Order: sequence, then structure tokens, then C-alpha cells
Amino acid sequence: MIFEVWAPKATAVEIEVLGGRRPMSPRAGGWWEADVPDAVHGTRYGYVIDGDGPYPDPRSRRQPDGVFGASAVYDHDHYTWSDHAWTGRDLRGAVIYELHVGTFTGPGTFTAAIEKLQHLTDLCVDLVEIMPVAPVPGGRNWGYDGVDLYAVNETYGGPDGLKSFVDACHRAGIGVILDVVYNHLGPSGNFLRPFGPYFGGFEGSFWGEAVNLDGPGSDEVRRYFIDNAMQWLRDYHIDGLRLDAVHALHDKRATHLLAELSEEVDALACTLGRPLTLIAESDLNDPRMVRPLEAGGLGMTAQWNDDVHHALHCAVSGESHGYYADFAGLPALAKVLTSGVLHDGSYSSFRERGHGRPYTGVPGHRLVACLQNHDQIGNRPGGDRLPAAALRIGAGLLLTSPFTPMLFMGEEWAAGTPFLFFSDHVEAHLRDSEGDRREREFEGFGYAWEAPDPSDEESFLRSKLDWTELKEEEHWSMLSWYRDLVALRKALPELSDPRLDRVRVDTDPDGRWLVMWRGPYAVSANFSSRPVTVPVPVHTVLLASDTPLPSNPSTLRLAPQSLTITRTPH
Amino acid sequence: MIFEVWAPKATAVEIEVLGGRRPMSPRAGGWWEADVPDAVHGTRYGYVIDGDGPYPDPRSRRQPDGVFGASAVYDHDHYTWSDHAWTGRDLRGAVIYELHVGTFTGPGTFTAAIEKLQHLTDLCVDLVEIMPVAPVPGGRNWGYDGVDLYAVNETYGGPDGLKSFVDACHRAGIGVILDVVYNHLGPSGNFLRPFGPYFGGFEGSFWGEAVNLDGPGSDEVRRYFIDNAMQWLRDYHIDGLRLDAVHALHDKRATHLLAELSEEVDALACTLGRPLTLIAESDLNDPRMVRPLEAGGLGMTAQWNDDVHHALHCAVSGESHGYYADFAGLPALAKVLTSGVLHDGSYSSFRERGHGRPYTGVPGHRLVACLQNHDQIGNRPGGDRLPAAALRIGAGLLLTSPFTPMLFMGEEWAAGTPFLFFSDHVEAHLRDSEGDRREREFEGFGYAWEAPDPSDEESFLRSKLDWTELKEEEHWSMLSWYRDLVALRKALPELSDPRLDRVRVDTDPDGRWLVMWRGPYAVSANFSSRPVTVPVPVHTVLLASDTPLPSNPSTLRLAPQSLTITRTPH
Repeated sequence: MIFEVWAPKATAVEIEVLGGRRPMSPRAGGWWEADVPDAVHGTRYGYVIDGDGPYPDPRSRRQPDGVFGASAVYDHDHYTWSDHAWTGRDLRGAVIYELHVGTFTGPGTFTAAIEKLQHLTDLCVDLVEIMPVAPVPGGRNWGYDGVDLYAVNETYGGPDGLKSFVDACHRAGIGVILDVVYNHLGPSGNFLRPFGPYFGGFEGSFWGEAVNLDGPGSDEVRRYFIDNAMQWLRDYHIDGLRLDAVHALHDKRATHLLAELSEEVDALACTLGRPLTLIAESDLNDPRMVRPLEAGGLGMTAQWNDDVHHALHCAVSGESHGYYADFAGLPALAKVLTSGVLHDGSYSSFRERGHGRPYTGVPGHRLVACLQNHDQIGNRPGGDRLPAAALRIGAGLLLTSPFTPMLFMGEEWAAGTPFLFFSDHVEAHLRDSEGDRREREFEGFGYAWEAPDPSDEESFLRSKLDWTELKEEEHWSMLSWYRDLVALRKALPELSDPRLDRVRVDTDPDGRWLVMWRGPYAVSANFSSRPVTVPVPVHTVLLASDTPLPSNPSTLRLAPQSLTITRTPH
Repeated sequence: MIFEVWAPKATAVEIEVLGGRRPMSPRAGGWWEADVPDAVHGTRYGYVIDGDGPYPDPRSRRQPDGVFGASAVYDHDHYTWSDHAWTGRDLRGAVIYELHVGTFTGPGTFTAAIEKLQHLTDLCVDLVEIMPVAPVPGGRNWGYDGVDLYAVNETYGGPDGLKSFVDACHRAGIGVILDVVYNHLGPSGNFLRPFGPYFGGFEGSFWGEAVNLDGPGSDEVRRYFIDNAMQWLRDYHIDGLRLDAVHALHDKRATHLLAELSEEVDALACTLGRPLTLIAESDLNDPRMVRPLEAGGLGMTAQWNDDVHHALHCAVSGESHGYYADFAGLPALAKVLTSGVLHDGSYSSFRERGHGRPYTGVPGHRLVACLQNHDQIGNRPGGDRLPAAALRIGAGLLLTSPFTPMLFMGEEWAAGTPFLFFSDHVEAHLRDSEGDRREREFEGFGYAWEAPDPSDEESFLRSKLDWTELKEEEHWSMLSWYRDLVALRKALPELSDPRLDRVRVDTDPDGRWLVMWRGPYAVSANFSSRPVTVPVPVHTVLLASDTPLPSNPSTLRLAPQSLTITRTPH
């Protein structure tokens, strides 16, 4: 078979394979190639650049012995797919479920995750979003320290494991979104530098050096990332990608990497004949992110929307520290529910500057909103989740909102387990500095630093979901609440209507309650610890976290910290 | 059950049902309602407006006795669906197959069409597009004389018949596009006028009076059409609509009906959780048609593109009469293959004015292109299809083009049957004038009028496909050619790549041959009756309508009237 590698500045490249080193021949554009007829699926190899190495293949599809070991030939045709009936899943109308493979189950593998799919189909989840699966150093990691971006963490089950997971999801009627990190590579096990100008030479974010998207040699670096996206969508049958922290992509070229990616993915959708989704994690509050290419936008299908999270979180938790400051108070929540974002050019006290731009005309399905996600739980020092009362109210608003709702694993049963930050770096200096990196992240939250050690295996083990909790009434009843909300969202078109200009919100001047109107349906939330009366006329109760209290026919009286969905005839 | 009807100018409305007339009560907005507890699925009824009538319900879901008979209650929940595994079909990458239910098979019913689905799955068709199914007067009609737009022609099998057809298609992995006519209603059996201001009072096209989209009362008239679209997509599980002749929609309101429809359909896609498609038949050559709403466009998923048809037709047929005049010559074909349209502002000799605007940045999948369709065959006086040699070359170019290809039933085996224009009007003056209406349509073609009588049943019967032809070698080999082309398109991503700016075309100054490059693949067509040599270097032949002739390694020598697809290594 033919081995190919890009190493534009090298004067000699060799491949170490089958017990020997063989020279590679230079080709146009800085590429080198060698024909190794005896290499087959599974053959280990590495590249030697000007005598240094061997290093893993930058495009290694498999690292059977981890990020410091050799690459292995992996033939995509080796896996036999059984999802022939799958025709894809449009993002519109979908409920997303974010999970971390290592902590979703006890064994922490794709195989174990497959056994839990029935739980997700019972919840009527449409798409699972799995946190990054690229190989990482050590035995546990959130995934954002990934290297070897074309390979799959062996701890989870490697390439075949991911394929069998996607295959099983598709057979169960569930699509798969994969979280990919293109704005940096992990601090350890990254051997791209000897090969070419993959990095920009400056710190792109506090996660590390920026990738080179607009400097000399960036044509091939961009292909590295775009081809990577193509691999997941084409060869792994993935339905969409969640692009980590796109605000940390530094690209001044006339066609931004995301626009180029969007156009390539559009063409790939023609090849595959199924919808493909690109979701950007962006904190820019810039609607161009989700505007179509034809509208001069970057063409993302959707973006994560922190403003909705922050406003929901403040309303249900009462917290307002750090970057939550601007989001305290129900007018903020009312604004995000009707405008999509709070910061549409307004002053952000956290950033100490104006922030964002109005999302006029953007349909709500382009904004992925959540009450909790890996960051918002895991970036709390104790990795603690919201309490039950907050979950009930927050989920009630989220799952009747005009946005694409996303749940975080375990949220649906008020999991008692935390989701802590954890990693397992091999180098002592990285283990030691992990606390410092973390502390910098916490700065924005205004937390005192007193979190468990990320490198302690306990931080990982404690974060694994405890599925036996589902035997307990309090967890089971929360799961019923979530199931009922998802089912109601899917039964009543008005609840998933993405038109923000149709959402009407009434709020209590005293900040105790909020009513969100979705056509004839009123979603009434009482955040306070006392009963409140809300102006919802003659109605039928469809769903209530607590039975509403008796009241006169033209109002609705809500129990403390409760949410009720009613229908008012027109 | 509650009966509702809009009749804003009426002073009294009655319902005739269960053997008697009952008064209806006025409601806000010009609506009238009556509760008829004994009415059930199947109950016949009609409305009496100020003593006139009874007339069929404008929103009648069933006309069991035809367009002049009573309406019948039809409960959508009465049908039990079995397409639960269907998750929709994105238009991107799709091959469409247009068919007319009445002539697709001998019996001309949905039930008979279901029996032919295996033929379509073997051809790897992704979407069938069925010509309009609204009730029409008489026993046969193309469908564009439809009235009772919410009902389904009983001759084909009525509402349940359509549902079972869609259901069967979905189980076979095929999506369904329904052709709907919103720009006019048929000249006979249309009883909308007594109810309200459905019409604009002027001739909107030569098919009849324009519908009232921007005059007084047009809010409800627009809802009439938009709710109709919703019905098909929601209650009939239809995957997309083909909107007939949208250039005959007269709408000066700030939000064009199509933009309003697009926004509604986007919201419905959230409810249904599957992609929904809107395809406009437009001869405006205006790219706003397919630009997203966010880009100030009308938000159609795609539009029919006559320019591609005309250029292909001229190249393979040698015809250049009537509106084909500007499309003669290979430079015209080269331009449409690389720009999407010929008329991008250039002078149209047929229209005697400049026409169109550039489609810059529009991906090719938004342009539905064909070599033949019901109009392009049926509007020829003899309803004659292209000869075999023309089909082979034309299909080869169409199915490797950047557009969304559409085939017309029978084309894939070079059906020997014509597709004639036919109708079956009850009123003598309409039967008599059908020829005149027809003649006016032909004016654009420059044909002498000598076509079979549209009202003669023979015109209908002769147009039915003759499936026994498939036993003959010449038809079977054509089917193999089409199957091979579709399969190749789906196997090689470059062949469906929608990016027009990546298509490169070389043409013979003498007009004998054209080579379309799709990445490393060359699609070489020889239109002439002699062998030609084309500048396609060292290559591998992938598919050929005729074995290429011997030539030196740097060229390809094509047999007369043949098409060859080759790969040139990079």
C-alpha cells in the first residue's frame, strides 16, 4: 500500500515499518510517499524526518499503543456497516444529549454505551453528542487534550468501537454528533511540529498554541482539519460535528476556515445524500456564525448559545457571580427567550466592553441551548449539578423554548454524581500545572480554588454516572418529568416553533415568576419559595411539576419552585 | 364534530349534512362554524352561502363523487402509518423521478404504482415527484386543472391511496415530492368564488385568473395555500413540494407568499424533525428564488432550471426552434454547466428583452435539471420523447452534472410511448377550447398545430407506460445505462459536487464535442455522426455508451453520438 505524508521542509523522510526503515520519495507540494506492498490492516509504522523520530503519522487512523506509540494501518472498509436504512437526521426539531464516553457507563467504552441506547430512545433523544474521542495521554481525559486527530481513543474502543457505536445509534434511530477540537492540540503527545507549519507560533487561547490557518503553508494545514471533518462524516457515518471553541480559531484569510468547511460539507452532503450538521461552540455572539454562506455568513448549521444557559442558570440557581453577573434577573431571561442572546451589542461587565450583535431573523433552531453541559457543570470546582427543583423549572423552560435543546448525561434523572474535571497526564510538569491551568479557567467564575485534583483517578471515577440511582423514586420521577417534557415538545408544534418573534414573555416586576407564551400554551415558572399567582387566564393544565393551587378562573396559582404548562383556548 | 368555513362576505351560511340544512354561527374574521355531533369519517356535506349551493368545502379533504359532488369528512387519524423508521430525505445528492400516477401504470392508481417501486429502488432513485393529485373534472388530466386543493383525486385512490403510496415509498427508502398548483385553479369544478375573495380579478397567466395574494382579504387566502402545504407535509408525510409556475403568483406584499411559506415550512421541520423541501418551478432566472431567507431570498430549497434542459436538448437533438433559439450551440451548454443559467442578464430572443441574473455562489443542488419532463415532452404536439442516442448522451451529461438531476418516467428505458397532453373536461366549451388553450402554449415552440385531441381518451391511453418494453434488448440496455450512470454518480463524490466554479468544460470550436471535467473525471460527449478525437489525456474508461476507438495515449477517440466517462490520474 501507498503511504503518504506532508513534510514540506524536510530534506529526507523515511518510513519505519515491518522492522526496517525505507526512504520515501518527494512529491509535489511537500508530500512524500512510499509503496510498502507488504503493509496490511494493522501494520505498525512511523515516520522519520531528517533522521528524527519515528513519529506517529499526523493522519494516523489508529494508535493501538497510545499517543506515544506507533501508528497502525487502519482500512475503513474493514468494518461492515449495518445502518443501511439510515437517511440522516436534520438538526431541526432535534433534542441533543451530550455524553462523555468514559463516564457515561462504568466500563467507559463504546460497547457499554451501546447498552444504554434504549434509555436514550425511551427519552426520545434524536442526536447524541459525544465529547472528543481523539487519543489523549493517559487513561482518562475530557477529550480536549486530544492529539492524533484522525484516530480514536483506544480506551473507548478505538476506530471499530466508534463505528459500532454510530452503527448501533443509527439502528436505534439516533444520530451522532462528534465534538472535534480544531483550535489547539493537547499539550502532550502532539508530534505534528516536526512535520510542518501546523502551528502559528503564538498562544491562541489558554489551551495552547494557535493552529496555523493563515500563515505560510496554511493551505495544507487547513486541509488537515477539513479532511479530518470529512473523515468523520464520511467514513464513520457521523451526522454532525460540534466544533470546539471556534472563537480560538485565528484566521484572517478572506474565506474563513469555517466557511470553507461549510462549503465542503455541503458538497459532501450531496455525496452522502443525508443532512450533515455543523455546530460551532462560539462565545462571540455574532450571528454571522449561523448565517448561510449565501448571506455572507460562515454557514454553521447552529451554534452553542451560552446566553440562554446563563440566564436560565441564574434564574433557577439564584447565582450571579463571575460571568453570570449580567444575566441575573428575569428581564435577562425574558430577553434571551425572545431575542436569542442577551448581549446583542450591549455592555458585558465580564468582558468590560460591548459584546455581540442582534440575531434578527435567525431561527431558534440554530441556537443550541442547555441548562447544563460538560463545561457548565465541570467548570465548577466541585463539578456539582443543579438541585432537583432548579432542574424541574429549568428543563421546563428549556424544552418548551424556540432553541435546539441539549441535555447533559444524567441530567434527566438528577444524577447525584458530579462531573469533575479530570485528566491523566504522563509528564509530571503537566500533572503539576493542571491545577494552574484550571485555576485560570476558574478566574472567570469568581470561584475560590478548592477543587479536587484533576489528575487524581478519583476525580474520574466519581464522575461516572451511577445508573443504580434510577431505582430510587426521586431519580425516577425526575426522569419521568424529562420524558414528559420531551414528549410534549414533540407533540405540540408550538413548543418547538423556532420563530423568536412569536415568543411572548411576561415577568413579575418582583422577579418571582415568568410566563412564556408559545401560541396558546403558557409555560409558567415560579422561581420563589412561596406560592405566586400568574396572569394566565382560563386554562387546561397539560403538565405540572407540582399541582397548581386553587385560584380564580382567570389566573393560575403556582406552588413554590414549580413549573406548569397550560393551554388557554383562543 | 365542528365544521368551519371562511366566508367573510356572507350574511348566512348553512351546512347541508345528514339529510338537512343547519345554520352556522359567525365567528371572528369571517369564519362560520357549526357543531354536528353525528357527523363521522365519511359523512357527506356541503355549504350553502346566502341560499346558494350547496358547494363543496373549499378545504374539502375528500370528494368521493368527484369535483361536482358533496365533500366528505375525512379524519387523518383514520389511516395507520407504518413508516416510523423514516427520518426524511435531504434534497442534496438526490436523484428525482417524476411520474404521473394515471399513466405510470396500466391501472393508473397509487396501488398499481406501489407495485413498481422495486423498479425505482433498483434505479437508486431517492425521491419520486408526483404530478398534481388534486381532484379534476372527468377521468383523466395532467393535474394542472385541479380544484379542491386539499383533496386527492379518487381515480388515483383518494386520500388513503396517496397515504399508502407515501408509506410504501418510505418503507422502500424513497421520499415523495408532491407537485402542487397555487397560481391558479382549474377552469371547471372550482367553487371557491362564492365563499370569499380567493381571486384577484385579473388573468394571472394563460391558465386562468390569478389568486388573490395581496388584495383585500388576502390574509386568509394566503393561509388557504400555506395550510394546504402544511397538510401534505404533516398529514400525508410528504417530504417536499414542487410549486407549479411560481412566476404566475402575483404578490406585491413585503413578505412574498413563498418567503412566508418557507418560514412556515422551516418551523414545521422542527415539529416533524425531518428535512422538508420546497422546489419552485420558476422561469424568472432570479437567484433570489433559492437564496435563504437570511440572505434576503425567498428561501426555496431548489428551483427547476429550464436553461439546463434547453441547452442539453439543443445539443442532443439539434433542434433550435422557438424558445430553444438562444440555446443552440455548445458554448450555451458550456455556460449552463459552469454558471447554472444561460440567461444571467443576457438578451433572451424569445422574450425580446434581457433576462435573469447571475447565480453566483448558488450551489448546483439548488437547481433541478432534467433532460425531459412532463412539459418538455408533453408540450410537443406529438408528445414524443428523445431518441435513444440523444438519451444516452444527454443522461450522461445530466447525471454527472452539478445539479439535482430529475428523470421523467420511462425515460430510463427509452419508453416508446408518447406523453401527450390530455384532459377530460365535462363542459363542451372547455373540451372545444382545449385545443385553443393548447395552441397558445405551443406558440412559444414554433410548432404547427397538428397534435392529437387532448380530450380524446386515446391521448391518455397512448401515454401510459408500456412496461412490457422492458423485455426488449434496446430498452433493457438503456435501463442498464441509466442505472450505471446513477450508480456512478453515487459512487464518485466529484460527480455530484455542487460547486459550479469547479466545473471545467472544453468545447470543440466546430460544435461536435464537449468535455466536462469533474475533478479527475472527464465526461466526453460526441454529438456528431462521425468519430471525433477529444483532448483527454491518459485515462481509464469508467463507463461508455459505445466503446471508444483506438487513439494515441494523450487523446480519447469517441464513436459517433457517444459519451464516455474516463478518469485521468492527477
